[in-house]
Amino acid sequence: MISFIPGPSELYFTTADHMRRAMRDGVASLSHRSKAFESIYRETAEGLHSLLKLPDDYRIAFTGSATEIWERSVQSLVGRKSLHYVNGAFSKRFQETAFQLGKDAQVISVNPGEGFKTAGTIHEDAGLVALTHNETSTGTMLEDGFIQQVRFNHPEAIVIMDAVSSLPYPALDYRLADSVFFSVQKGFGLPAGLGVWMYNSRCIEKAMQLQSAGTAIGSYHSLISLDTHARKYQTPETPNVLAIYLLGKVVRDFQFRGMDLIRNDTTYKATVLYQVLDEHPLLKPFVKDPDHRSATVITVDSGEKTEELARYLQSKGLQPGDGYGPYKDQQLRFANFPAHSKEVYHVLADALSEFR
Amino acid sequence: MISFIPGPSELYFTTADHMRRAMRDGVASLSHRSKAFESIYRETAEGLHSLLKLPDDYRIAFTGSATEIWERSVQSLVGRKSLHYVNGAFSKRFQETAFQLGKDAQVISVNPGEGFKTAGTIHEDAGLVALTHNETSTGTMLEDGFIQQVRFNHPEAIVIMDAVSSLPYPALDYRLADSVFFSVQKGFGLPAGLGVWMYNSRCIEKAMQLQSAGTAIGSYHSLISLDTHARKYQTPETPNVLAIYLLGKVVRDFQFRGMDLIRNDTTYKATVLYQVLDEHPLLKPFVKDPDHRSATVITVDSGEKTEELARYLQSKGLQPGDGYGPYKDQQLRFANFPAHSKEVYHVLADALSEFR
Repeated sequence: MISFIPGPSELYFTTADHMRRAMRDGVASLSHRSKAFESIYRETAEGLHSLLKLPDDYRIAFTGSATEIWERSVQSLVGRKSLHYVNGAFSKRFQETAFQLGKDAQVISVNPGEGFKTAGTIHEDAGLVALTHNETSTGTMLEDGFIQQVRFNHPEAIVIMDAVSSLPYPALDYRLADSVFFSVQKGFGLPAGLGVWMYNSRCIEKAMQLQSAGTAIGSYHSLISLDTHARKYQTPETPNVLAIYLLGKVVRDFQFRGMDLIRNDTTYKATVLYQVLDEHPLLKPFVKDPDHRSATVITVDSGEKTEELARYLQSKGLQPGDGYGPYKDQQLRFANFPAHSKEVYHVLADALSEFR
Repeated sequence: MISFIPGPSELYFTTADHMRRAMRDGVASLSHRSKAFESIYRETAEGLHSLLKLPDDYRIAFTGSATEIWERSVQSLVGRKSLHYVNGAFSKRFQETAFQLGKDAQVISVNPGEGFKTAGTIHEDAGLVALTHNETSTGTMLEDGFIQQVRFNHPEAIVIMDAVSSLPYPALDYRLADSVFFSVQKGFGLPAGLGVWMYNSRCIEKAMQLQSAGTAIGSYHSLISLDTHARKYQTPETPNVLAIYLLGKVVRDFQFRGMDLIRNDTTYKATVLYQVLDEHPLLKPFVKDPDHRSATVITVDSGEKTEELARYLQSKGLQPGDGYGPYKDQQLRFANFPAHSKEVYHVLADALSEFR
């Protein structure tokens, strides 16, 4: 059965081999205070820098999940007010996290299945502006021009972008944001249990300002504590060493394969699937506007046919993801990650074409 | 090289096999919202209940690390004041975490290398009393009578116990505490990246009281959020699924081998090592009082001979742990976990005996 569930999803082709090597070489019982661990951290961080073309002043810290980064970023980067662009369940949960932590968490929203055409009202006093690059619940992706406009409208704010289910696909301009984060069980094709927080020096300055002003920014996983350790390729706590090792190895594999090729393949697979859906008599893409359609999570409006379609695909060895939340019985979602080959996507596209 | 570093340490004998099976069976790409994941969670939680003989009203939640549980327990269980028994670096960091989170974090301390003879002053207004069952930095372990006295002195408080580097060895009376936690890379012989939080219904009531009174108890990993999900064998975020699976498997292996046997072996190995140290002309145990000596982390005062001893042991394929913090150049530490066989401990004891 090939899983198209948008995370945890299929492992990348090389992940199992790297896991075997890690277990053989004792990576799982390495002390996290050893030079060997620092080398692993450094290889992974430098690999990501190179793969994603991060600006020089970006550093990388590790958490237990991307969900944790929602919380840590609010604690370390928001004084009073944050602004959240919400168009689905995950961007909404980021906003709710800020609210739970006592912040004035403002919302600019569009309906599920829609993208943002303009940056909307300027909130000059928002200390943090939160974007969700790919809304996993609906399958919408932000356009580069929109991100530019948000940055332009909020020059003073920290702009943070949740790219959990889009990276490594988008060739983001990281200078338009101050922080971007993801987790490894989606596009990177790895076992779950690691959040990756990329941030620039403005984030550190902001966290220090807040701390100086008496704001409680947290303890071992405040951005300052994480960064103090990250500068030495260390972590405040015993981390998921295996996951950091595996990420470094898969990043190297992506570089070897070439990000241009991975991006072209991803775009190609998405194009094939959306074309089938656009021409299908029973199914249609949930996201109407092609400019806002995600390339990495493709959502199908299957209405009353949903359960039948899911069973039909499973019978062919293809495991779709359920629709999210209220759409569980009306939609299916398909991850389009580097672990999904073009061959597999042709099989999926043919199966959907033949479904009547 | 056999690692005696007190965590991450040697993997348990069966861990690599379970990892192979997990990778083969697709555990690493399971959706955390699937029935299959709930079964894994349930198997692990029920296994721990049975292995440790937890009271019926204890439930189990998972975090990224035990360090995280220091923070989450303070957030969810402390209103204003906590009380910390401190006799080393890790009990101290628990107290510092409470202080960083703005609590009135009181300390009852003894010197490093010493244990607690009495529970000391009663702090009737402390909402949380924090014990560290095994102080990994020095190699001291709490006595059962001391824990009883602390419980007796603080009937209203939540008593929480960090048992990171002692479990599964001690046959704890869990009714003397309200919460006990550990991480998997020590006694359980697993790759790092999972904290295990065991708590009773009094903890939930306390967290609810605090929340009702307007205390910010956190977001996705507040005890209430964790417990709401734990009741359904679910997690608030995408967790380290592999680690939860592996823990369940190793717990089953421990049950099969028998906890009595594991406990007897651990006591035996500790006795052998302390005897060598007590009789050694150059080395001595750091912890003088036999009643306070840890069975699971054994600290050797090696003074000026430390570096020479470390190199000598490494030449025999035995990797000692460094002394912690200020003791780095004067001590070595030896983990005595279920993954360390009696045979290996005999080799270690002989090597230490012959060291002159």
